This record gives sequence, C-alpha cells and structure tokens, in this order.
Amino acid sequence: MSQDFFAAHQATLQGALDAIAQRGFWTPYPEAPSGRIYGETAAADGEAAFKARLNKPFTLNQPATKAMVGAEVSPFGFALGITYPNPDIDGLMAAAQAALPAWRKAGPQARAGVCLEILHRLNRRSFEIAHCVQHTTGQAFVMAFQAGGPHAQDRGLEAVAYGYRAMAEVPEHASWEKPQGKADPLRMDKDYHIVGQGVSLMIGCSTFPTWNGYPGLFASLVTGNAVVVKPHPGAILPLALTVEIAREVLAEAGLPQDVVLLAADTADAPLAKELALRPEVKIIDFTGSSAFGTWLEQNARQARTYAEKAGVNFIVLDSADDLKAVTRNLAFSLSLYSGQMCTTPQNIFIPRTGIKVGGEIVSFDEVAGAIAGAVAKFNSDGDRAVEVLGAIQAQATCDRLDQARGMGKVLLDSREITHPAFPGARVRSPLMLSVDCAQTEIFIQELFGPISFVIAVDSAESGLELATKTAKQHGALTASVYSTDPAFLAKAEDLCVDAGVALSENLTGGVFVNQSAAFSDFHGSGANPAANASLCDSAFVAERFRVVQVRRHSA
Amino acid sequence: MSQDFFAAHQATLQGALDAIAQRGFWTPYPEAPSGRIYGETAAADGEAAFKARLNKPFTLNQPATKAMVGAEVSPFGFALGITYPNPDIDGLMAAAQAALPAWRKAGPQARAGVCLEILHRLNRRSFEIAHCVQHTTGQAFVMAFQAGGPHAQDRGLEAVAYGYRAMAEVPEHASWEKPQGKADPLRMDKDYHIVGQGVSLMIGCSTFPTWNGYPGLFASLVTGNAVVVKPHPGAILPLALTVEIAREVLAEAGLPQDVVLLAADTADAPLAKELALRPEVKIIDFTGSSAFGTWLEQNARQARTYAEKAGVNFIVLDSADDLKAVTRNLAFSLSLYSGQMCTTPQNIFIPRTGIKVGGEIVSFDEVAGAIAGAVAKFNSDGDRAVEVLGAIQAQATCDRLDQARGMGKVLLDSREITHPAFPGARVRSPLMLSVDCAQTEIFIQELFGPISFVIAVDSAESGLELATKTAKQHGALTASVYSTDPAFLAKAEDLCVDAGVALSENLTGGVFVNQSAAFSDFHGSGANPAANASLCDSAFVAERFRVVQVRRHSA
Repeated sequence: MSQDFFAAHQATLQGALDAIAQRGFWTPYPEAPSGRIYGETAAADGEAAFKARLNKPFTLNQPATKAMVGAEVSPFGFALGITYPNPDIDGLMAAAQAALPAWRKAGPQARAGVCLEILHRLNRRSFEIAHCVQHTTGQAFVMAFQAGGPHAQDRGLEAVAYGYRAMAEVPEHASWEKPQGKADPLRMDKDYHIVGQGVSLMIGCSTFPTWNGYPGLFASLVTGNAVVVKPHPGAILPLALTVEIAREVLAEAGLPQDVVLLAADTADAPLAKELALRPEVKIIDFTGSSAFGTWLEQNARQARTYAEKAGVNFIVLDSADDLKAVTRNLAFSLSLYSGQMCTTPQNIFIPRTGIKVGGEIVSFDEVAGAIAGAVAKFNSDGDRAVEVLGAIQAQATCDRLDQARGMGKVLLDSREITHPAFPGARVRSPLMLSVDCAQTEIFIQELFGPISFVIAVDSAESGLELATKTAKQHGALTASVYSTDPAFLAKAEDLCVDAGVALSENLTGGVFVNQSAAFSDFHGSGANPAANASLCDSAFVAERFRVVQVRRHSA
Repeated sequence: MSQDFFAAHQATLQGALDAIAQRGFWTPYPEAPSGRIYGETAAADGEAAFKARLNKPFTLNQPATKAMVGAEVSPFGFALGITYPNPDIDGLMAAAQAALPAWRKAGPQARAGVCLEILHRLNRRSFEIAHCVQHTTGQAFVMAFQAGGPHAQDRGLEAVAYGYRAMAEVPEHASWEKPQGKADPLRMDKDYHIVGQGVSLMIGCSTFPTWNGYPGLFASLVTGNAVVVKPHPGAILPLALTVEIAREVLAEAGLPQDVVLLAADTADAPLAKELALRPEVKIIDFTGSSAFGTWLEQNARQARTYAEKAGVNFIVLDSADDLKAVTRNLAFSLSLYSGQMCTTPQNIFIPRTGIKVGGEIVSFDEVAGAIAGAVAKFNSDGDRAVEVLGAIQAQATCDRLDQARGMGKVLLDSREITHPAFPGARVRSPLMLSVDCAQTEIFIQELFGPISFVIAVDSAESGLELATKTAKQHGALTASVYSTDPAFLAKAEDLCVDAGVALSENLTGGVFVNQSAAFSDFHGSGANPAANASLCDSAFVAERFRVVQVRRHSA
C-alpha cells in the first residue's frame, strides 16, 4: 500500500530532487486560491470544514490522552472554542517508540511515499488550511492560503527531497572485493541500514505553524523518526489538521499511526520543556524566541535542536536609480503581515548625508520621508490594507508597539484599523521611528511586529559594517541593500556572506526581501544567531538518521 | 597554483566520489610497504628521515609559539627527544581566523586540490610516517605503515570526497523564473556561497593519531575551515609531520599557511580544554575517553563535537561449521595491536550449554578453551608475535592488565614478551578471563588493551540481547556473531541495527572484525554512546559549512 503512494508521487519526488539540485523556480502546489485549480467548490468546502471544527473537541484516534485542552482566539476577534488531546507524556512517548521499528523497516521509499501522500492531501485541503491558519496566526486570507498552504507544502516537500536524497546516497548493498596478489581476492557482502534517531519533537510557532513546522516534521518522518507535534497553544488547529491527515495516510499504508502524534497544551500549562527533556527525544525542531531556543540548546542535550530564533534584519541604502520603485517595494515589505515575519526588515540604514538617486543627492530626511510616505500611502485605505496587514497575532505585539513609540522620533505612527469583515480584529498599521546609529541599544534587539527604525549613519559603508556586525552578534535572516555601485554591492556581498545573512540586492519589482521561496531560497543560513540551521539543506537532514552496516563473506 | 593541484588529482577525487557512492573496495594508496611501489630507497629514506627528527626541535614556521615542548617515549623503549611548538592560544586563534577569508574565497575546488596534494605527499612519505606512528603508538611496523599511512590517507580522502560532494550539491548559481500568468515572469539571479564554520579543533589520540585524526582534519579543511591540530602528548610526531606537509602545500598554492596549525602540549600542561572552549572554535573532532568526549559535548557548547569514545565490542557464538576457522580468526582479532583498537572485541558470549559445531554440541569449556588455545598458539613464538602485538602504548594499559587478572577465572594469562629488536619494548600477550553473565558490572566497562572476557550465557539469544542492550547503554563500535542459523543471524541483524553497532557475520577468513576499510565500512554509526558520528558519511561533513545566498533581479 505504501509502495503505491511512492509510485503515485514518484514524478513529484523527482521534480523536487531536480529542483533542489538546480534551485530554480519549481512547485507542484499552485499558490493561487483558485477554484479552477482546486475545484469550484473548494473555497466553500474549505470554509465550511473550518466552521464545522469550531466549538467542539478535535478528536484524534491517538493514545494517551489525559484531557482535552485549547483556548485559541482568532486575531480577527472570536474564540475558536476547539479542544485537542493533551497527552500523558509517558504514554505518548511509549506509543511513539512502539511505532519506530515498523517505520524503520518500511524503508526510505515507503516513508517517502507516505510523506508525499500526506502533502498531497494537505494540498487538496489548502482552503480549509487557509482558514485554520488565518484564524490562529492573524494572516490575511490570501497569505494564509499561500504561506500556510502551498508554500508550506513546498517546504515540506523540499525536506522530503533532501532527506530522500541523503538516504539514497547510501547504497543499500555493496560488494567488496579486495585483491590479494596471486591469491583469491577477499570478498564481502555488505548491507547498509538506515536508522532514524528516535522520537523527533516539533515545537510549532504561532505565526507560521505550517510553513516553519513542515520542514522539521517531514525531514524527520522521511528519515525514519516518529514525530510528536507540539503546536503553539495559540495556533494548534493547522497542525492538528496536519496530524490528523498524517495518521489517516499512515493507517491506509498499513503503518503505525503513532509515527505522528499531537501534544496540545495551554499557555498556563506548557509541555514543551518536559517533552524536550525526555530521553526518547533525539531531535527537536523549534521556531520561536531566542530565549527558549537557547534554553533548548543548553538543556535538551540528549537531542539535536534545529532552532530558528530572533534576529534583526536590515536594509542599507547607498544609491538608487528610482527611489519610488525602492519605496514601493519597502512599503509592501514593511506592511506584509504587520511585520510578524522572521524575514521582515527592522533596521533601515541611511547615510545622514543622503543617498544618490539618478546622480542627485537626496537628503536623509527626504529618503526617510519617502519611505514613511510610501508605507502610509500603501495602508491609507484600511479596507484594502487589512488584506496585506492581516491582524496582530498576539496582544503582546500590540503592547510592544505602544511601548516602542517613545524609542525614537516618530516618522510614521501606527494606527488602529477597523477590519470591514471582522470588527473585533486586532489590526495596526506600521510604526516607523527615526534614530541615530549611536543609539545601538535601541535597534540591536528584535522588536517583533510592525516596528522599524530608520537609522542615520555616517556613510552607507559604515551602515553596512554596523548592520553586519549586529547580524553576527544578534542574528539576522535577511539583508537588503540598494546601490548602483558595483564596488558597494561587492562589499555588501562579502560582509553579508561573512555574517551568514541572506542578501537581496536592489529589489524594486515583485519580489520582496521577506519572501523566501522553497526549492530556491535557503531560509536561514545557520551561520549567525538567528538560526542554527537552514530550511532546507543537506545539513538539515543529514543527522536525522544513522547508517548501520552488516557484513559477511560472500557466498 | 591551487587549481593545478585540483587538476592533478581530479581522477583520484573522481575515484573517491565513485567509491563513496558504491562503497565497494577502492584505494589509491597501496597498503603494501613495498619498494616496488614506493621506490627502492623509500624504506631506507623513511627510516633515515625519522631518525633525523630525533633529539631535536621540530620547528614549524607558524606564529604564536610560546615554547617548545615534547616528551614522547617510544613504546619500544626509547625517548624521541623531540620538541614542538607550544602556542600562545590568543595568537594561534588570531592566526587561524586571519587565514579564513582567503581559504573561503579559494572555493571548493581549490581547497579539494590542496587536500588531495597533502594526501598525495603524505602517501609518498608513508615509510617515514610508519616509523613516526610505530614509535608513538606502539604499533608494529607493518601495521604502523598500513593503518598510519595508506589506510589513514584513505580515510582522509574519503572525508574530502564526502565534503566535496556535499558542497558540489549546492549549485553556485541559479536562475529563478516564476510565471506571472500573462505578465512577464519574475526573474532572479541567485548566488550560493559556501562558508566554513570557523576554526576547527582536531584533538588527536595516542593509538591512531593519523587514522582517527585525518577524517576530521580533511573534512574541515575541504569545507573551508581552519584547523588547529592538538595531538595527544604521547603521539605528536605523526601529526606534526602532517601539519608540516599541509603548510608546505598551502604555501605553494599561494594560500595562507595558517589554515593548518599545530598546538603541541604535554601531559602536565594540557591545552585541549582551553582550546575547546575558545569562541573561535566551531567544530571539534575528538577520539579518546568517554569522560573527555562527554566533557567536550557538555562544555564546548559553541562548537559541534564529533566524538569517538569508549565502547564495549562483543562476539556472540551460536553455532559454526568449522570451529578452528572461527578460533583462528578470533586469535588474530584479539592479538592485533594488543587489543588497543576501538574495534577490538572484548566480550565473547558463549552459551553455557555449548554451541553446535557441524551438528555436534561442543561444550562451553571446550569452546572457551579452543579460543584461548588459538590465541596462545598464535602468540607462542614471541619473535613473530611482536609483529602483530606491537607494544603497549601506555603504562596505564599494562597496569590495567595487571589489575584485570583478578576479575575472572584466568583462561589465558598475559605474559611479557621480549622484543628481539627493541629489548625495552612494552610487549604483553593477551589476557583472557572467564566470567558469568550475571557479573555484568565486570564486563560492561571498556578495559582498553589486550583483555577479553568469555562470558557464559543461558543461550546465544540471551547473549545477543544482553550484548546489544549493553551496546545501547555503554556503546559499541563492532559486533561479531557466528551462527549457521539464518533465523539467528536475522535476529542478530535486527538487534545490532537497533543498537547502532556494525555487525560482522561468520568471519573465518582474512577479514577481521577490528578492521574497518575506508570507502566501504562505516566506522561507528553515531547511534550509540561509542561515537556520535561515523567516519565517514554525509552527516560527518554536512554541518562543517553553511550556505549563504545573494539574489538580485536578473539583468
């Protein structure tokens, strides 16, 4: 049965393998929330399926459930009213462990087939997932569809491809024949067995539960581990749905369903630490705060932790041909999902002497004003703005926004926007502050949310040096520079490569620095404190399994 | 210049890449210490070169030397009288850091070329290395030549191949073109830069300084790291020679010599901890005690430690066609280098009811006696025995041997053997003790050296279960079983794969369980406490570098 899944999706896997070798554009999961692609009733069906989940228990046929818990509230202003299995951890770990031998013996192809079928079914349910993601993360619908659906599925598939390639590079058998001069050669037959590390723990985040969660989930699954999914208590639903589908596919494949288990908790009684310290847990995937990521690295020593933590992303402006194209691009970047992306720029370095635009000097104040003006204009129509801004996931982000107002000169104030469809939604437009580069203590910390600083520096070079130094010390996932000077761009490349931060140069079109495309963009480098791994590369999968050999004289 | 090295050795690299894909027999470095291969004067030249090193400082043109230190004593009974650079660590780290940018920018091909040229020169000097290895480790000459020379070079080349393949799998550039319906596609050019992690620390061991050291050294080098080589104070010479050659090749390639640096210390003033805790050090390769390996894992948190530690290897006898062939094979395994191999079996489980040999039951005592008798016979002629036993590297091993005598019933006592050429050599024949499986506390610890236990168990199955349980808890690199029963072998395979221990079945010919052939045998699985990594696989190299991307709109 599981072999059928592999056969059914072999072309998709091959496409993904080709894509990771080339890293050009590729996806099998269309990003357009279109009825022509997903079926004319898909939108309505997805919404109905979401609504049918509300205000009742989300039951999963998994063992060791102690209680049903859940207190999710949509950032758009209503309680979901759903409860999920809260586990007895001993029982959950025993179930995961018990599932391991059959999952190992199924082998790489069968496991890849199961993963591909899970992704396929997730894809077919992208509209339903979009509603689940929207009403837990606060993403606007189209973004929730794309980032929570097809783009997350892409990232999951990418992890399957890396994991599968890494396993396929280990031959299953070898014939070893060592010459012995005139005597007969020594001949040995050898088998190489792929063995997962054990139980893998995926700790989900509240803003991108599927996009950030699927890489670790699928990388661990395909390489033979059982996965316990511990969602953020504020964003359980998208991952509960994922676990449900995974368990359905496993059952149909005749494999133990407990290869994938949900562990739901609440903010008041969090389970992540207890789960992370369990001896059965050998791998942890985590996206979230630096404090907790570092806690995991320091304390969960029995496991390998892949952590994406906080960072301070930056933009340096040196020169441009067309300032309007620059500010238009930045306005979208700074507004998208109200800056609640790990890739959103926070610090915008501009020479205090201004920048050259088409041969003319434009002053610092003018450039800062042009960016703030573009952001203001982009969000001037609240009814349209909400479709990019989405809602603020956590009240803490609104509080942070209010506190940040006093940290610099306000270039653009944040305002509350009333959502036309969801009057209770927590919607805020971006806040922009102007500070001097001497005020480092203000801008070297991540202020998660729609908060950015325009920072006056002595020169674009010094801004670049300060920004990359900050990236090395405090982390950064993305950098963006604008310059018409090849020497400046070369210097930016050198410093960003050294600081381990992905650089985008002169983005003025329809690509934005906060967007990271699966199969092409490496999300995070693992080379600065913002992340200790990349989504997704060979390093992300290579240690999720081990090779154990058996040898004997040839018959 | 460095590109010339790549071109010169491209066929060797391709051979290695093919070999790691197939994992059959392959080597470019002949293991026979033969004048026809290495040149008619190679043997004499190598010995003369070794002798010329004695009783003088081993100078290296490297910076930050604080003093010259060294107190190596050959296990064959004479002091080497050589001193080596003992570094000022701040200065050494600064030098390594300063070498990094040029080494990164040289790129994968140039770095591979340098590594291949170093290995080539090491190979040409295998006779010299053999003497250096013999008179630090205590290995007999032929073994010192093979394990310390060509086989170690094979392991180094294998690491280069894995590292090169992992880097080559990341495309240097990509063209990303995303369709936009009827509008023009979005087009981006992307560059992917390979960046080493930083400074890599290789902590050498006293028994296989090159064989165990080269994988980490070359894996880190090819992937763009600078390497500080910190040899065991008892076995500095082989690695000092390696560093000297590496620095010569780097200079000829026009690259910073400080990419490879030696840090010699003494037993009284060890440097490993201080080096390991340096923030510049991002990778540590270590072979040695479990205590220090665990200390590194727990304390050197800024680095990724690849550690091979202690383990308890085992043999289980169930049945055999030809007991003589079994005992002959075991006699060599138990004698080779006086059990000072991390792969030497220690625990031999035999059913107390005996084993079936050719349809007849042979009693426990008879089997135990047959093994002990074969070991005794193998070592009966001292003049010949020393060429397999070698000498005992450390006095502590002799002390352990003396203390072990009381731990069980002596099946075969150890005796001192006078080396015909080196009367001062520390030579001991193997000690074999008989214990009951209930005396677990005796045999679950590693007793490094020529000490083995014959352990009476209720059945071969229970022996297998006890042995693999011990492997999971205390580590094991090798397992060996003898059985004519396919069901027993299947069970052994399942339990050994689960315990992460490499299994050899029915070895009766010219292959021994302690031998691990590069390009074919994975040395260690990383899946039990004996090692957290394998020499060598993709996981061993994948995290030694990071990928940092730069993207821009296509022109």
